[in-house]
Order: sequence, then C-alpha cells, then structure tokens
Amino acid sequence: MRATLDFLLNDWLDVEALTRRPRFADHSRETFASVLDTCERIAREKFAPYNRLADTEEPWFDGERVHLPEATHEAMRAYVESGMLAAAQDYELGGMQLPCVVEMAANSFFSKASVAMSGYAMLTNGNANLLMAHGSPTQKEVFARNEFAGRWFGTMCLSEPQAGSSLSDVATRALPDGHDFDSDPLGPRYRLKGHKMWISGGEHEITENIVHLVLAKIPGPDGKLVPGVKGISLFVVPKRLVDEQGRLTGERNDVALAGLNHKCGYRGTTNTLLNFGEGRFPVRAYTGGLDGRGAGAIGYLVGEPGKGLAYMFHMMNEARIGVGLGATMLGMAGYEASLEYARQRPQGRPIGPAGKDPAQPQVTIIQHPDVKRMLLAQKSYCEGALALELYCARLVDEQNTAAPDAAAEARLLLEVLTPIAKSWPSEWCLEANNLAIQVLGGYGYTRDFPVEQYWRDNRLNMIHEGTHGIQGLDLLGRKVVMDGGRGLALLATRMQETIGRAAQVPELAEHAESLARALTRVGEATRAAWATGHPGEALANATPYLQAFGHAVLAWIWLDVALLAQASRAAGGPQDFLQGKLAAAKYFYRYELPKIEAWLRVVETRDSTCREMEEGWF
Amino acid sequence: MRATLDFLLNDWLDVEALTRRPRFADHSRETFASVLDTCERIAREKFAPYNRLADTEEPWFDGERVHLPEATHEAMRAYVESGMLAAAQDYELGGMQLPCVVEMAANSFFSKASVAMSGYAMLTNGNANLLMAHGSPTQKEVFARNEFAGRWFGTMCLSEPQAGSSLSDVATRALPDGHDFDSDPLGPRYRLKGHKMWISGGEHEITENIVHLVLAKIPGPDGKLVPGVKGISLFVVPKRLVDEQGRLTGERNDVALAGLNHKCGYRGTTNTLLNFGEGRFPVRAYTGGLDGRGAGAIGYLVGEPGKGLAYMFHMMNEARIGVGLGATMLGMAGYEASLEYARQRPQGRPIGPAGKDPAQPQVTIIQHPDVKRMLLAQKSYCEGALALELYCARLVDEQNTAAPDAAAEARLLLEVLTPIAKSWPSEWCLEANNLAIQVLGGYGYTRDFPVEQYWRDNRLNMIHEGTHGIQGLDLLGRKVVMDGGRGLALLATRMQETIGRAAQVPELAEHAESLARALTRVGEATRAAWATGHPGEALANATPYLQAFGHAVLAWIWLDVALLAQASRAAGGPQDFLQGKLAAAKYFYRYELPKIEAWLRVVETRDSTCREMEEGWF
Repeated sequence: MRATLDFLLNDWLDVEALTRRPRFADHSRETFASVLDTCERIAREKFAPYNRLADTEEPWFDGERVHLPEATHEAMRAYVESGMLAAAQDYELGGMQLPCVVEMAANSFFSKASVAMSGYAMLTNGNANLLMAHGSPTQKEVFARNEFAGRWFGTMCLSEPQAGSSLSDVATRALPDGHDFDSDPLGPRYRLKGHKMWISGGEHEITENIVHLVLAKIPGPDGKLVPGVKGISLFVVPKRLVDEQGRLTGERNDVALAGLNHKCGYRGTTNTLLNFGEGRFPVRAYTGGLDGRGAGAIGYLVGEPGKGLAYMFHMMNEARIGVGLGATMLGMAGYEASLEYARQRPQGRPIGPAGKDPAQPQVTIIQHPDVKRMLLAQKSYCEGALALELYCARLVDEQNTAAPDAAAEARLLLEVLTPIAKSWPSEWCLEANNLAIQVLGGYGYTRDFPVEQYWRDNRLNMIHEGTHGIQGLDLLGRKVVMDGGRGLALLATRMQETIGRAAQVPELAEHAESLARALTRVGEATRAAWATGHPGEALANATPYLQAFGHAVLAWIWLDVALLAQASRAAGGPQDFLQGKLAAAKYFYRYELPKIEAWLRVVETRDSTCREMEEGWF
Repeated sequence: MRATLDFLLNDWLDVEALTRRPRFADHSRETFASVLDTCERIAREKFAPYNRLADTEEPWFDGERVHLPEATHEAMRAYVESGMLAAAQDYELGGMQLPCVVEMAANSFFSKASVAMSGYAMLTNGNANLLMAHGSPTQKEVFARNEFAGRWFGTMCLSEPQAGSSLSDVATRALPDGHDFDSDPLGPRYRLKGHKMWISGGEHEITENIVHLVLAKIPGPDGKLVPGVKGISLFVVPKRLVDEQGRLTGERNDVALAGLNHKCGYRGTTNTLLNFGEGRFPVRAYTGGLDGRGAGAIGYLVGEPGKGLAYMFHMMNEARIGVGLGATMLGMAGYEASLEYARQRPQGRPIGPAGKDPAQPQVTIIQHPDVKRMLLAQKSYCEGALALELYCARLVDEQNTAAPDAAAEARLLLEVLTPIAKSWPSEWCLEANNLAIQVLGGYGYTRDFPVEQYWRDNRLNMIHEGTHGIQGLDLLGRKVVMDGGRGLALLATRMQETIGRAAQVPELAEHAESLARALTRVGEATRAAWATGHPGEALANATPYLQAFGHAVLAWIWLDVALLAQASRAAGGPQDFLQGKLAAAKYFYRYELPKIEAWLRVVETRDSTCREMEEGWF
C-alpha cells in the first residue's frame, strides 16, 4: 500500500505544494515521508500483531472497571508517544502543523493494522478538534490540550437508546447547577441526566480521565424540552472532575457505565451504554438545595445553548472521512491478505483450449481468471476509495489554508462529497472483504486467517456516524439541491475537466466517454427525482441514488488517477505498478460503472414500489 | 413463513397431485400438513431457543472427545424421534415415503431455527441416500438403515488440505487389505491413509458411531495414483468397526481428529480435519503382514473402483438444493427478525411535503420508505429463493416418480437449475441478512439480536459444496452447453410459457416484457461468450454470468408466483398476503432484474480485463 499512498500523495495530490503555504512552511516531502515511516512502523509493531487479540479478548466489565488487553494499552502508549494525536495542531499546542491529508494518510496505517484499537485515538482527536473550534479558551487549555497530549481520551455522546439516528429526540436534560452556574471558569455549569447509547471508548482505564462531549437539551421556562434539533446544546462532561489547571480534583463525576455492547466485530473498541447523573457516583452537593445523590452529572456548556448539533456537524465532514478511511483500510487489509494467499496457494490448473490437463502440476490460484477478478475488484474498490478519501482530506486542507475563493470552493465540494466518502467505502470495501474471504475459500471462513475479522469489523461502518440511509437523504435531500445545486454543478465541472483531458488520451478515451454519459445520467436522475417537488417522492429512493452517485464519483477518481498513471508510464515510471493502476481503472469502468443504470432507473421514475408498500402486506 | 410455504406447496406446486402416484398414495394434503406442523413445533421448541448457544458454546476437543452443548444433543434426539431422517425412504426402511418437496419444506423449519444444529441431520441424510443409490445390499442394511434410524450419523469426506475445490488432486490412498480383501461381507476391504479437511460432523458424541464416506484413490500397479478425477473411488469408513448385523465390534477404526476448525459462523456444526490411517488408533493386524500401527483405516469400497466422484455427484443436486435452502432459511430468519423489529421500534418521522415536523410523535420505522425498501428486498430475495428451492425439489420428485419423458425433462431442467439453486440464495440471502442488520442499526450489530449470527452463518454457503466460482464454471462451462444446449432451451421454453400467460394479465404485462427481454439477453450473452469456442475466453466471466442467469431465473419464478397471486386475488383470496407477493415481485422486477445488464455486458464482450491481469501488476 505504501507505494500507492506515495503515488497518490506526491504525484497525484501534489502535497508538496502545501509546503509553500505559511502554516506548512517547515515541512517538506521528506518530513511527510518520515511521519509516514514512523506510523507505518508503529502500526506494524504495536498494532497489527494484536489485532486478533483485541477481537478475542473483548473488553469486559468487573462491575468497577473495564478490562482491555495489555496490548491495547501498549499500542495506545506508542501512538501517544508518536505525537500523532496532535499532528495537525499548532506548534504551541505541541502539534506538528501537519496537513490534514498527510495526517489521514499516516493514520491509515493504524486503521489497517487494527481499526478497533485505533478507534480510541481517532475519537479523541475528533473530540479535541471540536473543542478547539467551539470551546472557550479555558476549555481548550484544560480539555483539548490534555487530549492532544494523550493524557486523557475523549468520546462523542450523541445517540440515546430510544433515538439512534433521530437526534431531534435526544432526551438527556441539562439544568443550570445552582445560581452561580454561570461563573465557573470551565464554562457554564450544568447538571445532566440521561442515557447515551453506542458510546465508543465510553469507559476504559487507558487514560486517567475520559472527556465526554454530550448532546443534551436545556428545558425551557415551562420545564419542557424543545422539540427538534434546535433545542440541543453541547456539554463537556469529564469522567473525573478537574480544576482549571487540568488537575484531577479527586471527585468522580456521575457518569456510570450501564453496560458494554457486545458486537459482531470492532470488538477491541469498548462500546458502552452510559448513565449520566443517575446517582451511581453522587457528585458535590447540588447547590440548588438537594443533596448530591441523583442531582446529575456535572457538565460545562460549550459555546452557546441550542447550537450543539451545529457544532457537532462542524466536525462531521472530517469524522465521516475518518470512517470512510477506516472502511477503506479494512478493505485494503483484506486485499493484501488475500493477494498474499493467492500468490502462494497452489490449486487447480489453467483452462486451455482443450480444457484442463490433470497430469499437469497445479498452479497458484492467482492464475485463475475468477480469482484475478476477485482481487482486481478489491484493488479497484480499495485503492479507489483510498484516493477519494485522500482527495477529500486534501479539500479539508484547501478549506483551511487556501485563498478565500479556493477555500470556499473546497468547502462546497466537500459538502457534496462527504456522504460518498463515508458511505462508499463502507459498502464496497465491505464487499472487498467479502471477496477476500472468497479468495481464501474455507480457510478465509476460519478464525485462523484475518479476513473474516476484517469483514465483521467493516460491517459497522454502514451503521455508525450516520447510517447508509441517512447519507442518502443527506446527499439527495440536501447536498445536491443546496444553493440551487451549486455543489453538484461544481463537482460536475471538476469531472468534466477530467473527462476533457482523458478524451485526448487514446487509451482512456473509452472511459472518458463512459464517465461523461454517467455524469449526464446522474444529472438527469437528480432533476427527475425532484421533478414533482415532493420530498417524499424524491427521497424514497435516496439509497439507490447514493449508490449510483458514489459509483460515478469513484469512476471519476479512477479516471483522474489513470490519467496520471498513463502519463507516468509514458515517462518511464514503474511499469508494473502503473499497469496495475490502469487495470484497476479499466475494471471499474467495465465491471462497476455500468451498475449505475439499474440504480438510477428507480430514482428517475420516482419508483413508488417501496413507498407504497403497506405494513400489512409484509 | 408458514403461510408462504403452504401457498407455494399447495397452490403453486400442487403437491397434492403427487398423492395420485403410487409411491405417495397413502398421503394427502392433511398428512403433508401434519408433517410440517410437527417439524415447525420441534424446530420452535428444540432448535430455535438454542441457536445462539450453539454459536457461543462452540464445539471443543479435550484431546479425547469433542464436546457440544447438551441442547444440540437434545435437538438431535427430537429430530431423530420425528422420523425425519428417513422421511423420504420406503416404508420398509422405516420411512414415510414423503415426496422430496415436502421433506425439504419440512426441513426448512430446522434450518431456519438453527442451521448449524440441523447440519448434522442433513449430512446424515445425504450420506445414507448415497449408500441407498450405490451401496451393496449389506451396506444399505448395515450403514444406511442405521443412519436413517438416527443410531449413527454420517459425513462426506471430499476435500483435503492441499486440494479444496480441486478434487482431481485427492491424495488419500486406499490399498487392498490383504489377500482376502474381496471377501468381506461389508464390501471389498481397503486400508486408507490420508487427510480430509472441512469435514462437517467429522467428530462428536451425539451418536455411538459415525459413518464416513471417503473419496480416495486406489494406486495403479505401478503404485502411483491416477491423475484426475477418474482415479477416485468411494469408501465407507466407520469410526467404530461394525459387523454385518450392524453391531459394534468394539474396535475403534483409525480415523482420528487432527483438529477442529474455528469458523466465523456456523459454529454449532463441528468442522474437522481428520487423519485416516495415521496410527492414532491402530486397528487389526494388517493381513498384508505388517503390524496394525499405521496400516491404515479400514474402509469398504462402495460400487465400482474409479466411480467415486460420479457417485458423489449423483447426490449433488439434492445436496446443493439443501445448501440453497439453508441459505434461504437464514435469509428468512433475518427477514422475520428485522420485520418484527421494524414494526415495534419507534424512531423518526415521516417526510411530508414540507419535510419533517419534530413536534409530531415518532413513528415505527417500518413507516420509512428506506426501511420498507430493505424489508421488501429481503422479502423478494428470501421468498423468491424459497419458491425456487421448492420448485427444484419438486423436479426431484418428477425425476423420481413421473412418467419417463417427464422424468427425463425434469432431470435436464434440474441440471441447469442446480447451480442457481445453490449459488443464488448463498449470495442474495446473505445480502438479505446484511439488510436485516441494517434495519436494526446498532442493535443489529450486537450479539443481543440474532441477525448478526445469521449473517455470519450464511457466509459459509458461498464456499461449501462447490464455491460460487465453481458454480459459475459448472453453469456456463457445462450445463448450458451440454447436449447442444438442450437444458437451456428447455428452461427457455418454461420461461416463455410463463411469459405468455403473464402477457395476458394487464397487471403483469410489464413484467412479462421485462422477462422476455432478459431471456433474450441471457441467450445472446451465452452465444457470445462461446463465440470463439475458447473455454478460457468464455469462462473468464463465468461468475457474472452466474449472477445474471440467477437473477433471470428468479424473475421467472417471481412472475410465475405473481400470476397465481393475481388470480387468487381476483378470486377473493387473502388480499394483504397476496398484495405482498405482488409487491415483492414488482420490487424484483423494478430494482433487481435491471442489474443483469451490467453482468451480461462483460460476458458477451468476453471482457479480458481480469484474464489478462498479470500477477506483477497487483
């Protein structure tokens, strides 16, 4: 994978160009490479060897503490020591001022080595980033800084047992903590009560403290919660209370583990149901007059009340690119494992003009066309997805450090691409894992080989951080129609630009034509979906739309990569490597892109088969 | 599911008509129903409640014995007592002379309740059936009879560690056991040495003995094994030796458990690596002059030497229908679980013309179009697959009991349909399980709900009893071209017949047209694939061909079922139930059938992208 990563970063995305911007001026191609080297090494030494262990020795709770394998603790120590938690932060925060695209590329090694172990770090990074964007100076100093230093880890507490995707139904309540609630140096102090479900990293002993970021509602004067997402505020709720110097006060906050979720995969990341403020750990006398028991967990408001979801979504693009990259890396891990197996396993014979000759020796299975098909499919899914994720990460850098016009354009493009960056690898790199199992046959189905675990781990990605269905609604319901369709138009312009260049290259002209047709078809289907203006009709087939859109985007990415591969080949670049890229692109155009027709057909006819299905007919 | 099963058996396949044949003359619609009732009850009481237990309490080996949960023993006792092991056999063998289609329907309840537990019984049945077809009278009496009675269970030992799908490379050797080898009442006696991999039910204590059917090669006069499948013979190798009255002699045969395979799913079925004749259990003095140790496991030749694979394949159609039905039932179990969940889980709100109103109460998720889509997809996959499997089972009855011409036609049709009956549910009912998880969201990913286990269990079905790739080669390489394409022509005639009838029904005319087009396209692609006559070119895309062919067959099945549903509706049948069938058919035609175009395109162009991919390019 490293060669592909270098090719994409250096030759395709020209990350070196970023070093001409002030923020990245101290960097060079060499410093970027050295970060990748370090991460690759730590991932290989401290993560990969223990990935199966993290699955078999699932976290368990003894009633007081959650136990994780010692290997997870060690991997986290190594990760913290690498400084990667703060990689993209300012120097003064202990960071490296690394571009987002390089940070993501470096983190990809950890995801590939053990997606479940690396989950703790990714969450902590996202949590601290959010505080950097919306927290008060003290909150940044106390919470974010200690997270970047790896002293504390963080979580995101959104879902509740009765409201998974439906955040407007968040029922966790936050009440001002006494009359002096507004004069706490850590921020307006509230008492929170409620239950949070699916909280990854919600309890563990890896770090001395855990910083929870919690969505909750502050009741109105009538004591009632405001319906909808507008009533949601964001709070920072540490597991153990701290003072404004970030020292533990010795008080345990009332955040209690109600139970661990036992998952199909991704087992190494503790996933929890947390009770906030139920009285398991009574904390401080409630200045409202009650005694402490059951008064609520202490939390500090972040930013303004009612803006919690907006703050959370501010970081969502990066979080979703992170999920997409994690899914991609699971796919990549399976691809590499099945490729290695196929190269070594002798079985069967080639089919000649007269069939097979059993007197001939067996060949390695990589010689069989159907095995090549399964490997090439994996390659096209995983390397294509990797290119897309890095492209999106590069857009984050544009958004953050480019000139205003270019930054605005990058932001817009990112809005449209994020649902794809999240959903596409979740679906297709899972399919890659499915194919990896198939390449290994019966062995792939056993726990003696890693591929079945990748497949189980990857199944989570279509669910968390916004389900597949939610991504479809986001794309067709918001992203392609916002601002009169400006985002979609911008993406189309970028795609046209690639098509225009590819049309001039004889080897790629066929693909350019296919992509142009696909782009037209996506545009037609988008308009047809909304032709009646009724959201219910347009959105009933949002998921097939998401799938078609995703395949068109990936075809574009592959064509752009193929353009470079073709040029590099002509310039005498590494022929086998570049032929591989061109073959994967060709596979995608011949075997995958044609699938969009079936998906778009139901979108453009606003097919009502599903919408009109009645409960009693099932 | 029961209503669907009754509808398909009684109204669609008219199983009652079979009772007019002498073999089934004692039966009636009522006796068939009573068998289904019994099996449904036993499956509900003895299998379903312990399906998770069979997963979590995986079989383990203490060095002497393999331990299974007591629940598995009890379930097997109940199954044996039901008489289902011999359900299709002659009365004189203790059987019920049940048609294959009713036997399969009845067994489907067990597969749905616990596919892993029911595996032992299915294997035993297949093993005994093979002996009934090809064994000597004594072998039938001693081995098959005791298997039908449930006193002993059976296995099929084909694969070897170095040769999974490639049976021509079987290396297990069988040597005549002394000069009197040919005078044993149990059959010509041989000594077997070799390793057999992936043997389900290969070791357990459920029954007092295990009857292994083993493929092995008898060396030629030069001591060498004949290359290819022609050298393969079939042997019956009991774990414990028996006399010709079927009494245990007290001698342990030299069949030793080398290890258990630890699988991703399907954990309740012991899966083993067996060593034959390595000397772990030295048995009898080798009459060739050596002492017993390492002389080989004792086995008795079944039928003639060199015909082992033909015998095995004689039973393959039924075995593959069995796998397809198992995959179907896992899909069905997930469909039912996710349907129940979707009916009870409140979350989110409907999208009206002005979007969502958060002040409204939540609705159950079955109200959301995307959830309906996921349920309808499952319904169309699983009920469609169930209809196909029962149709194939009905063809087995035709083959066995119809007049010669009809029997020959049924046999031919079955040859063409078997790869689909095996592969299609393995792929699409696995996808159904994937959707079931998605309907439940995070809950579906936990082990607190059954759907993740169904998904894991079902993943095996694309691998065992001939992988997906093997099914594709069988279909495009043999079945559609054999006898100058007679099988394909016959299938086309049957499909045309359905199309002709549906074209007359206004509600179904659109589907009839789609199917006619699909049939034409499959025909064109078949010819184009073979246009150059080069097997390597034709078969490089055998798997996409298998997928397209499968979808066309399922569309045909659904149209035929829809014709009946439409007629029953008009005749005042249960409206909701029948509307459901019509909606599922419509879903299949609108959302699924159009997918075949992308698969057929690479087939008919003999796309060489995969075939020409070089190892060094990956």
